[in-house]
Amino acid sequence: MKQPVVVGVDYGTLSGRAVVVAVEDGAELGSAVLEYPHGVVERRLPSGVPLGDSWALQMPADWLQVLEETVPAALAAAGVRPDQVIGIGTDFTACTVLPALADGTPLCGLDDLRDRPHAHPKLWKHHAAQGQADRINALAEARGEAWLPRYGGKISSEWQFAKALQVHEEDPEVFARAERWIEAADWIVWHLTGTETRNLCTAGYKGIHQDGYPSEEYLEALSPGFSALLEKIGHPLSPMGARAGGLSADGAALTGLPEGIAVAVGNVDAHVTAVAAQAIGPGQMLMVMGTSTCHVMNSDVLAEVPGMCGVVKDGIVPGLWGYEAGQSGVGDIFAWHLRGGLPADYAAEAAERGLSWHELLTEKAAMQAVGEHGLVALDWHNGNRSVLVDHHLSGVLAGATLATRSEDVYRALLEATAFGTRTIIEAFEKAGVGVTELVVAGGLLRSPFLMQLYADVTRRPLSTLDSEQGPALGSAIHAAVAAGAHPDVHTASRAMGKIRRNAYVPDPARADAYEPLFAIYTELHDHFGRNTDLLHRLHGLRTAAGAGS
Amino acid sequence: MKQPVVVGVDYGTLSGRAVVVAVEDGAELGSAVLEYPHGVVERRLPSGVPLGDSWALQMPADWLQVLEETVPAALAAAGVRPDQVIGIGTDFTACTVLPALADGTPLCGLDDLRDRPHAHPKLWKHHAAQGQADRINALAEARGEAWLPRYGGKISSEWQFAKALQVHEEDPEVFARAERWIEAADWIVWHLTGTETRNLCTAGYKGIHQDGYPSEEYLEALSPGFSALLEKIGHPLSPMGARAGGLSADGAALTGLPEGIAVAVGNVDAHVTAVAAQAIGPGQMLMVMGTSTCHVMNSDVLAEVPGMCGVVKDGIVPGLWGYEAGQSGVGDIFAWHLRGGLPADYAAEAAERGLSWHELLTEKAAMQAVGEHGLVALDWHNGNRSVLVDHHLSGVLAGATLATRSEDVYRALLEATAFGTRTIIEAFEKAGVGVTELVVAGGLLRSPFLMQLYADVTRRPLSTLDSEQGPALGSAIHAAVAAGAHPDVHTASRAMGKIRRNAYVPDPARADAYEPLFAIYTELHDHFGRNTDLLHRLHGLRTAAGAGS
Repeated sequence: MKQPVVVGVDYGTLSGRAVVVAVEDGAELGSAVLEYPHGVVERRLPSGVPLGDSWALQMPADWLQVLEETVPAALAAAGVRPDQVIGIGTDFTACTVLPALADGTPLCGLDDLRDRPHAHPKLWKHHAAQGQADRINALAEARGEAWLPRYGGKISSEWQFAKALQVHEEDPEVFARAERWIEAADWIVWHLTGTETRNLCTAGYKGIHQDGYPSEEYLEALSPGFSALLEKIGHPLSPMGARAGGLSADGAALTGLPEGIAVAVGNVDAHVTAVAAQAIGPGQMLMVMGTSTCHVMNSDVLAEVPGMCGVVKDGIVPGLWGYEAGQSGVGDIFAWHLRGGLPADYAAEAAERGLSWHELLTEKAAMQAVGEHGLVALDWHNGNRSVLVDHHLSGVLAGATLATRSEDVYRALLEATAFGTRTIIEAFEKAGVGVTELVVAGGLLRSPFLMQLYADVTRRPLSTLDSEQGPALGSAIHAAVAAGAHPDVHTASRAMGKIRRNAYVPDPARADAYEPLFAIYTELHDHFGRNTDLLHRLHGLRTAAGAGS
Repeated sequence: MKQPVVVGVDYGTLSGRAVVVAVEDGAELGSAVLEYPHGVVERRLPSGVPLGDSWALQMPADWLQVLEETVPAALAAAGVRPDQVIGIGTDFTACTVLPALADGTPLCGLDDLRDRPHAHPKLWKHHAAQGQADRINALAEARGEAWLPRYGGKISSEWQFAKALQVHEEDPEVFARAERWIEAADWIVWHLTGTETRNLCTAGYKGIHQDGYPSEEYLEALSPGFSALLEKIGHPLSPMGARAGGLSADGAALTGLPEGIAVAVGNVDAHVTAVAAQAIGPGQMLMVMGTSTCHVMNSDVLAEVPGMCGVVKDGIVPGLWGYEAGQSGVGDIFAWHLRGGLPADYAAEAAERGLSWHELLTEKAAMQAVGEHGLVALDWHNGNRSVLVDHHLSGVLAGATLATRSEDVYRALLEATAFGTRTIIEAFEKAGVGVTELVVAGGLLRSPFLMQLYADVTRRPLSTLDSEQGPALGSAIHAAVAAGAHPDVHTASRAMGKIRRNAYVPDPARADAYEPLFAIYTELHDHFGRNTDLLHRLHGLRTAAGAGS
């Protein structure tokens, strides 16, 4: 008889992927990926209806197409028969959230709501609810809401309540008709099992659930009628690694997997990666580095870290306090720099030598001594998630001269994101939550120069996920637990997860040389993030001029 | 008999040009230009000897070649016989200064000094004497030197004394062997007449001459032995428009002009342009806009404007107080942005439509409403000449997002230089020196969008020099005065100068919209220029890392 396998499905920002994994040792047997046909919907709906500034939506049909195409394709690639599969697990970007009917039908699937922007799922990086987030925070602070410090003192505009409040205020009819307001992470599991479940992770980190949701009184004070949200999200929460149910007949038809196999409760892409990377011990900070960076870490200590995204009991794995923080722009910022173009001779050199532009600029940047470019940047081109929690901030570059070259700016941007990480680490340590090791997953792993830079700047050893399939592998591990093949997530992570320990260690001389640059970063950070509202004024002018043009 | 003409020769940063002008009405009959074979020498001497950071030298042989080639070529282009020429005038970049023997031989022309960097002329933009300038200023302030406020409280590292002190300290032998320390503006006249003269303009603006030079006591306190400079520069000063002498036999042989014709005393390119542009009345601020911008203005009021470059009695035209201020990077900054490259589709569009990259980005930038890009920059990529007088400052860009495009940054840089101009204007007005009209000359005149932007930002009407040959025309006007064809510079300017009045007038709505952006510029200006030494620290790190690599 063939070995038992599980399937992990990871829903990213631009694509979904399935991986088939051996239950015994985590061997990755095959995978398949699908770019979402609609991608990220930012300018207008497929029907042509325009969206506002900073909007970002997705289409549920794309998510189903991922199940339909990638699961069979991954099995085929693995040479595995469907009847070997004992479970399926999924993870999603978060907070990606949608309004639905009581039977799970997304409101955007209804003929009369199809053209209403607010009827569609809002992707994590929908940043148009900052005004709502500001009011959520101001009121919570004024009322001394006990849950606020659990989120570093600030609720993000990216999360469930800010996005829901935007719907409530800008399209009350859609809000009223939403019988459920649900994370995509839970919606996709609902679609597979036929039964609604809600996972503790998204409820805790994105839904302000701490021994219960915010009170009816608070929500009514925020906006009359908004407490109706409590009914739309109310549901028992399932622990991480639990079985959500058996694969329904519809789910089996869609995926080609056997009806009745275990389906794990929903999960978040970053958090589930900690399990894949064996980074679930106290003090191990997992950094999922891609377009943005998500930091997740477990601790046996509960602390209220200013500017963290959240701390949730059992939020990542049962038995520990799970912390989350984040940087809202990382790889996105490097790509933005390249979108501006390269000097003609550089572009020619890259083409001739068969290098990507990233590779060429990295090579040139790596030839410099620390500080030689004379630049320090603030990595806020997509706002600041931690520790300032402010999406109206923007990027700053100081120190440019007529001699400043493209690779100088590029390196300054790489460094800025490392300084941003160190700022987050220092906030944790100052609050009494030790950070002893960095574990990196995500696409930016591909740059050894960037990895070494992070080790030098943070003065910490850096281990790496030893798999190309972080979140999907983590989802597969959860599927194995849900199917009963391993007794708990910890055991399954040890058996199936993959880490390369201390792949990079800090160089003391370079680490010392970065200190004065980090001091300048900190000065800029505090000035533009705390002491002046200059960047907010620029945001206001930009928004007003754009609206008027 | 053919009409009398004069020849004006203008020595710029990269090239020299001659223009043949009718004495009666200023008609420009022909011109010729020569790019300096050695250009600006910044990295190493022709022999290979390396130069330090921020050095900029020029080669006297290039200047002579300009006389030899462009004067006959301009005459030929004009269809004018040499015997019609009644005078020649010249102007130069300043402070461009060199060490020479008592007979005028440049020290860099001596075999044993040819490979010594300090034996060569230092171009205006040689910025390696900032340390010396800092000490000059500190000591002058400590001793309460009366001349210091005449220079806005700061002597620039670009000027004669800072550059001479650098020679004195870094190559004492060259300093000792220099019998003369002379502006190139005067050196070229010396070469034409065979007799040393010194003009009041460069002595006043670049040589700290105010009723005499700084005292021997002061110079000795600055650096023992440095007062020897006084002998090297001591000479009677000639008023602007005076006849320096007759063209020598050598000068006639070099240029092909008749021996004995009038040679005007030396002049500075920016200041002489005011005469060409009929911008010599009180309150008319001439801006020569090219790689950098030089502001010159006359007033009947003496005031000590903080951060101006200098005020000199009769410094521009006899009878008025002549003011100078400047921005050390303008067109250079725009060109720097383009050196970083353009997005591939933009480059293709420019090629297809036959537009320069400047034209394409200007067109795209012009489509925006004021403030729409959400950016404000500090235009200090080449330091700040006025009002901070600090070449260790550098550029800052605030407000970048992932949506920021190349034309957004480009427009922000254009605006930053306009804000820099307004900062200078406000410093003058606050000190009681009214600025009622801007008159623009220089290469950036070619951009109507930029001109309108300056009118809007400064809220002042903007007139333009109506000639392609500003400084050379101004030099020709001085030649006409020196030759006695007009009684004085004022009369000659009215007869031969050319201005297009109110070519651009402010648009009130746009002017209002720029106000909050200018407020942000001012906040950044004061923060980075006055409240923090952050940019100085970056400069220090850059210099230290560069030196160590």
